[in-house]
Amino acid sequence: GQKRSSHSRRDRNVLVIIADDAGFETQVYNNTVCKTPNLNALAAKSLIFKHAYTSVSSCSPSRSAILTGLPEHQNGMYGLHNTYHHFESFDEVQSLSKILNNSNIRTGLIGKKHVGPESVYPFEFEYSGEDYSILQVGRNITKMKELTQKFFQTQDERPFFLYIGFHDPHRCGHTHPEYGAFCEKFGNGEAGMGTMPDWKPVLYDPKDVIVPYFVPDTPIVREELSAQYTTISRLDQGIGLVLKELEAAGYSDNTLILYSSDNGIPFPYGRTNAYEPSTMEPLLVSSPLTTDRNGQTTEAFASLVDIVPTVLDWFNVSYPSYHIFGKTKDVELTGKSLLPLLHEEPTEGFDRAFMSQDLHEITMFYPMRALRTRTMRLIHNLNFRMPFPIDQDFYISGTFQDILNRTREGQPLHWFSNLQKYYNRPEWELFDLKEDPQETRNVAMEEQYSVILKDMKLQLLNWQNVTSDPFICAPWGVLQDAGAYKYNHQCMPLDNGL
Amino acid sequence: GQKRSSHSRRDRNVLVIIADDAGFETQVYNNTVCKTPNLNALAAKSLIFKHAYTSVSSCSPSRSAILTGLPEHQNGMYGLHNTYHHFESFDEVQSLSKILNNSNIRTGLIGKKHVGPESVYPFEFEYSGEDYSILQVGRNITKMKELTQKFFQTQDERPFFLYIGFHDPHRCGHTHPEYGAFCEKFGNGEAGMGTMPDWKPVLYDPKDVIVPYFVPDTPIVREELSAQYTTISRLDQGIGLVLKELEAAGYSDNTLILYSSDNGIPFPYGRTNAYEPSTMEPLLVSSPLTTDRNGQTTEAFASLVDIVPTVLDWFNVSYPSYHIFGKTKDVELTGKSLLPLLHEEPTEGFDRAFMSQDLHEITMFYPMRALRTRTMRLIHNLNFRMPFPIDQDFYISGTFQDILNRTREGQPLHWFSNLQKYYNRPEWELFDLKEDPQETRNVAMEEQYSVILKDMKLQLLNWQNVTSDPFICAPWGVLQDAGAYKYNHQCMPLDNGL
Ligand SMILES: [Ca+2]
Ligand SMILES: [Ca+2]
Ligand SMILES: [Mg+2]
Ligand SMILES: [Mg+2]
Repeated sequence: GQKRSSHSRRDRNVLVIIADDAGFETQVYNNTVCKTPNLNALAAKSLIFKHAYTSVSSCSPSRSAILTGLPEHQNGMYGLHNTYHHFESFDEVQSLSKILNNSNIRTGLIGKKHVGPESVYPFEFEYSGEDYSILQVGRNITKMKELTQKFFQTQDERPFFLYIGFHDPHRCGHTHPEYGAFCEKFGNGEAGMGTMPDWKPVLYDPKDVIVPYFVPDTPIVREELSAQYTTISRLDQGIGLVLKELEAAGYSDNTLILYSSDNGIPFPYGRTNAYEPSTMEPLLVSSPLTTDRNGQTTEAFASLVDIVPTVLDWFNVSYPSYHIFGKTKDVELTGKSLLPLLHEEPTEGFDRAFMSQDLHEITMFYPMRALRTRTMRLIHNLNFRMPFPIDQDFYISGTFQDILNRTREGQPLHWFSNLQKYYNRPEWELFDLKEDPQETRNVAMEEQYSVILKDMKLQLLNWQNVTSDPFICAPWGVLQDAGAYKYNHQCMPLDNGL
Repeated sequence: GQKRSSHSRRDRNVLVIIADDAGFETQVYNNTVCKTPNLNALAAKSLIFKHAYTSVSSCSPSRSAILTGLPEHQNGMYGLHNTYHHFESFDEVQSLSKILNNSNIRTGLIGKKHVGPESVYPFEFEYSGEDYSILQVGRNITKMKELTQKFFQTQDERPFFLYIGFHDPHRCGHTHPEYGAFCEKFGNGEAGMGTMPDWKPVLYDPKDVIVPYFVPDTPIVREELSAQYTTISRLDQGIGLVLKELEAAGYSDNTLILYSSDNGIPFPYGRTNAYEPSTMEPLLVSSPLTTDRNGQTTEAFASLVDIVPTVLDWFNVSYPSYHIFGKTKDVELTGKSLLPLLHEEPTEGFDRAFMSQDLHEITMFYPMRALRTRTMRLIHNLNFRMPFPIDQDFYISGTFQDILNRTREGQPLHWFSNLQKYYNRPEWELFDLKEDPQETRNVAMEEQYSVILKDMKLQLLNWQNVTSDPFICAPWGVLQDAGAYKYNHQCMPLDNGL
């Protein structure tokens, strides 16, 4: 990376805060029950995005897209990074931290990282779940506060980029059921739970929680939601602690702050899916240098792949010129800086978001490509003849077990969907969100949407091409991009009935 | 690794020769047309296996199984290593070269490697396709001869393990069509083809080739087979050169030699499939210390995962004690040393082979698990509702294009199968090879095979369990192996209709 101008960057810093599987259970987004005073305070000095989308609804792939600005299919993180899932970005990828390291900006990471290899995602200062217990560096907000202090105590003359990955409000029934379904008891001072001096757990009556339209309204789900809310109180208080340290260290007036989450909430139609609740994310962007729109909401669409260009814009660093796999064309960022929006609402652009998902767990091959426009959502399910896969973590959740058991016993689901519908999806799904915001009616086969469908398919294909998607010809064809086709990539038909 | 006894290993070396996509087009296996005098000579001082099987019919996965003794699902090489496929073995895996490096044995690799990461597969002496043109280090037999000389010139006091990966007779229409479908013209001295002083190309009339039962008998296929035969002449002469260097360096009388190939030939029902022609491999084992059975054939079953225990046995080195991903049990080799067979035919055991395949190319998710017994083959197709995938290399081959075109035009296929049958496979395939050696009749649903089917399914499941297969519960269930299930792994049902 190179500086594009000579203005000083000495006093321009960045703090990115990424929550884990967090959704809209905050007062910022009009949830009147779940209390988030610290997020509220941040929102009051932020531009609040109503239409921010993740590039992919899965932890590692999303974090790779956040940190590279490239969709998972372009950076190589096709699924989860840990254990036998074992996905990693391509060695050639220029991540944000790598670019900033090379631009004399100090980089730090505290908490959840969940991407690799290390050589692609180097941070100068790193206390992450890759090397430490994620419960300590990602959920113990007292520990996270101390690590933030440590980062600021060791801060030098350079600007900094600090990335803090809270593990809340991720489920933990899969790995640490002893602390509750959402680790909501971890560190609450009860017997065996340990203590966390800085956290004052907020408890909720299951009767009071707001049940999102896409999950069943049953006692078990309500209990899970109340546990989730309690865990959100830890996230919210952790954010408060971090922002206090930022202020105490004297960086409040020159630090760009971004808050978002990596993927949809861990409920049906949430994480690992390609629907609205799967891909919509909270997004707050707060600049002490541009306060005109503080507390306002924007109608602009944003994608988490916009974070890289936004941070590069803030630091006035250019994206480097390079390519992957000897491809002839340079890698190009498809995201765009969000900083201009802090001045004024855009009059054009910022009106669509693409997404791509491939595996999540190694067994969960279910590639999807999607395009969200102002009014429509198009989803291409590439492995559509197989049932939609369920991840280990969600499988053993109370919510999914409740759905399974009620289905088996023929009891009412209190759900807007059912298990068979959830498993079995057509190749193409098209939703008219103006008429059908809950995506209950697939209009892909309806005549009056044929022109829109065709146009959206073309936009999707163009984006797959620009982002070097290896799945661009799936499932009906084979991509030829080597030998005689090196400079003339082609999709060639398989005649396989698809 | 540790020595189990104190006998000297100074004068015990190993040479492993792996061909690429080679099958039974050799005189050794009674092909009366394709001339392979050097393989013949090696066979005359080898035990010749009639029932050797690859662990997986795909380049990188198979080479990972050869070099680790672990199936691809256990070592992490779920598919191809190169470019956007990007699969790599788990960091913890103890490969053969790593174990031997640690046991004071010199390791060398010339030619095709196609596995990674480097840290898992370290070779002291390496000239591979990872760093050099694979055409030079893997197909230019003069260059390969010189590299072999170089290896022996720099040989020291230690025993050696030398692994030579010929890239012949792999197709090259996908990457280097200018040299012919099988690179059969590369280095033949014609204009633009370069020269290779040590290779005397042997040409074949397409009318004379022997068309295997599993490919169409058409002019285009016959032309491809004649090109394949010509390329086999380069492989065969290359093997001759290497063995001559071994002799010239004085190691012929103390070097164990193994010859095999990584996967089935690149024709339908060959590479990337789980049938007989997909998984059967040539295998020659030649020990100068045990010559009783030289030139004999054995009825014993072998798997390419037997190579690691065979080499460890030869060097008297134990397999190390370790585990992967904090699993509680140590990694265990399921293969066995083949050295005892050089003395006498076994009276029990050596009568089954397992295989597992997951992706090949990143887009080609089609996991299969298979068990071959003396008389039966069972295949479990996990993604069976989707069409069987076709790789980029095979897709543009004359053979596949011929099948596509003839199908489109309604012309006779001259094939024992058809495209729709090839694409569409049931979840379970069971073949009675005594009655049906060409695997044309699936008896999985037939009542009289129900006991055999049940028993084979159980054997397969046990093997998946012993080899820590993440796909053990697919496609009907979810594996729980963490948290409450860490010491008590369970398959839990999805009720997804499978
Ligand atoms: Ca997440
Ligand atoms: Ca091969
Ligand atoms: Mg890599
Ligand atoms: Mg790795």
